[in-house]
Amino acid sequence: MSTTTPGLRVVVIGGGIVGLACADELVRAGHDVRLFDPAPASGATYAAAGMLAPGGEAWFGEEALLCLGVDSLERWPAYAAVLEERSGRRVDLRAAGTLLVAADRDDLAEVRRACVLLEASGVRAEELDRQALRAHEPTLSGRVAGGALLPDDRHVNPRRVADALLIVLGERVVRARATATPDGVVLDDGSRITADVVVLATGAVGMPHVRPVRGEVVRVRSHDAPSRVLRARVHGERVYVVPRADGELVIGATEEEHSAGQGTPLPTVGGVARLLEAARALVPGLDRAELLEVVARDRPGSPDNGPLLGPVASPGSARVLLAGGHHRGGVLLAPVTAATLRAHVDGLDVPDAARPFTPDRFETHRFERNEDPCT
Amino acid sequence: MSTTTPGLRVVVIGGGIVGLACADELVRAGHDVRLFDPAPASGATYAAAGMLAPGGEAWFGEEALLCLGVDSLERWPAYAAVLEERSGRRVDLRAAGTLLVAADRDDLAEVRRACVLLEASGVRAEELDRQALRAHEPTLSGRVAGGALLPDDRHVNPRRVADALLIVLGERVVRARATATPDGVVLDDGSRITADVVVLATGAVGMPHVRPVRGEVVRVRSHDAPSRVLRARVHGERVYVVPRADGELVIGATEEEHSAGQGTPLPTVGGVARLLEAARALVPGLDRAELLEVVARDRPGSPDNGPLLGPVASPGSARVLLAGGHHRGGVLLAPVTAATLRAHVDGLDVPDAARPFTPDRFETHRFERNEDPCT
Repeated sequence: MSTTTPGLRVVVIGGGIVGLACADELVRAGHDVRLFDPAPASGATYAAAGMLAPGGEAWFGEEALLCLGVDSLERWPAYAAVLEERSGRRVDLRAAGTLLVAADRDDLAEVRRACVLLEASGVRAEELDRQALRAHEPTLSGRVAGGALLPDDRHVNPRRVADALLIVLGERVVRARATATPDGVVLDDGSRITADVVVLATGAVGMPHVRPVRGEVVRVRSHDAPSRVLRARVHGERVYVVPRADGELVIGATEEEHSAGQGTPLPTVGGVARLLEAARALVPGLDRAELLEVVARDRPGSPDNGPLLGPVASPGSARVLLAGGHHRGGVLLAPVTAATLRAHVDGLDVPDAARPFTPDRFETHRFERNEDPCT
Repeated sequence: MSTTTPGLRVVVIGGGIVGLACADELVRAGHDVRLFDPAPASGATYAAAGMLAPGGEAWFGEEALLCLGVDSLERWPAYAAVLEERSGRRVDLRAAGTLLVAADRDDLAEVRRACVLLEASGVRAEELDRQALRAHEPTLSGRVAGGALLPDDRHVNPRRVADALLIVLGERVVRARATATPDGVVLDDGSRITADVVVLATGAVGMPHVRPVRGEVVRVRSHDAPSRVLRARVHGERVYVVPRADGELVIGATEEEHSAGQGTPLPTVGGVARLLEAARALVPGLDRAELLEVVARDRPGSPDNGPLLGPVASPGSARVLLAGGHHRGGVLLAPVTAATLRAHVDGLDVPDAARPFTPDRFETHRFERNEDPCT
């Protein structure tokens, strides 16, 4: 890969899937990169289900985010193939599509609304009645109301993606906490590193405009596991079930705004109970599944749920770029995020779909220039 | 403590709370004791809630077991005091009583049946209406039907009891797997140890007449924790909530017969979901509690749910005694079990309440001698 600028000294702060993907992209662009994280891939990436399903997350009013997700989804097959080739690790990318499932009539109305939006945005969505749904996925309850197939969705194992990125980055990943300074970063031991570019990818903590959104997921093993990704509404409750290798499933995910706490978040009794109830109502055979792990993590939520991709005002000689606020979409959006950050660093054209997601959309001066932000 | 026989070479196989308590009692009686377990206190003891509540477990037809439990409960205060003194560790013994709680009218009928049995057996039980129940425990749901107070129940932290016993036993506990032989035991590395007495206390695995009964418990932390032990029936489902230090609670316990599997058992989605639902229905504030741990273990169940305490036929020079089959009662029954085993080893009178619990009650020849086992 050619570079348009000579190799820069780049520091990435934060080693979740977004920070790792950005670091790797910038290495491949010829830059001198180091990434700092005391515990890489142990935050939201550790809990993520790995759905590559822009449609499943679609909401009215977030069409730009849907387009960004579709762009990144299209990048995933090549991205995964190259990463597997370079790392020698499998990332378990699968292309079985997503089944949207509605437990009752109200849930079904929501699914139908989502399908209308998806088709208007060019995403294929095929509505299915109960029988057709259960023909696709026989483990589903006989009491579901109906749903839809999104045939183009994929999913991947985020822990394996992070492992593969850690392998290709090698010693460029330093297990230490770093804080940005005007001319680079300072580590907890006091040592200072000068950089031309600092990429902030610290997830739910320490990013401008980003708030933590608690999520809980459960990992189980079943002898009677669904073979497709299920995204369901069960009496208004959202739940997904994502198959992995070896009969493992990830069941998620709660979503809860909260003030940032200390240390690793803990799952709650109510959150886990609601997940397990919804999953059992959807796939009755899960009653017998073995519970392997219960995990809570904070997602990085931005004011409009879209990511923050690009430069912010920097007080010194180092340029500062954000790669954060990915909320539920960090895994899906990692390839387009890495390409976008690389374009910003090297002065290239950013992908069209990423243009609306510059951090300055939340800066006060935007509203000062235009008294009505809605015009 | 005096001994009636010269110090014997005793080997105890199994380091759950029962094996540890027996080993300690036999050391104090002057015997030369070694205990073998590859992972002491990691089985049912690790999952146990530590209720010292013979009445809470009472069922019609198990009066002998109730009497054994009452005997052991009376031993606990002195037992805990001596153990704390010798080990320098606190075992968190508390005397707040148990509240029996019924969620609906059918549940209440069961609670009333239990109270009748308890009073007939000399155990104090005070029936309470909803208001009186909630005056004792304000964290209870306003929708409970009623219940009862068992003022004499206690509870203890089983992990702390095991820690204290491990301290006082010191190097007598060997972390290795042992198998009984005609003249002692053989270890997995092939080394043989000759013994005069072998005590089998291996819990759910490797004991005659004992089957595994899977149980699941959840450990949580709440800012609004009940201060009393709650034993409840919630629409037929049994659940208990046991307070520990620092706002921690143990919520248990499912009960499921199954064929013995390999390795440490795993909790199931359905089992954990039912526990969490029942606990939330009982104490609504638990919805916000943090989930710390989910544990599944196998209890050692005997054909009549009573323990097996005493000698069995042995093929060689070593006498073999059983201390097992304690089902849900290992923690409660540890003191009376230790005293009973010591009495059998030394030829002393066994406690009256323990007399019905010799292993020979399940031997075929008993039925051969008397065609109707019920006469």
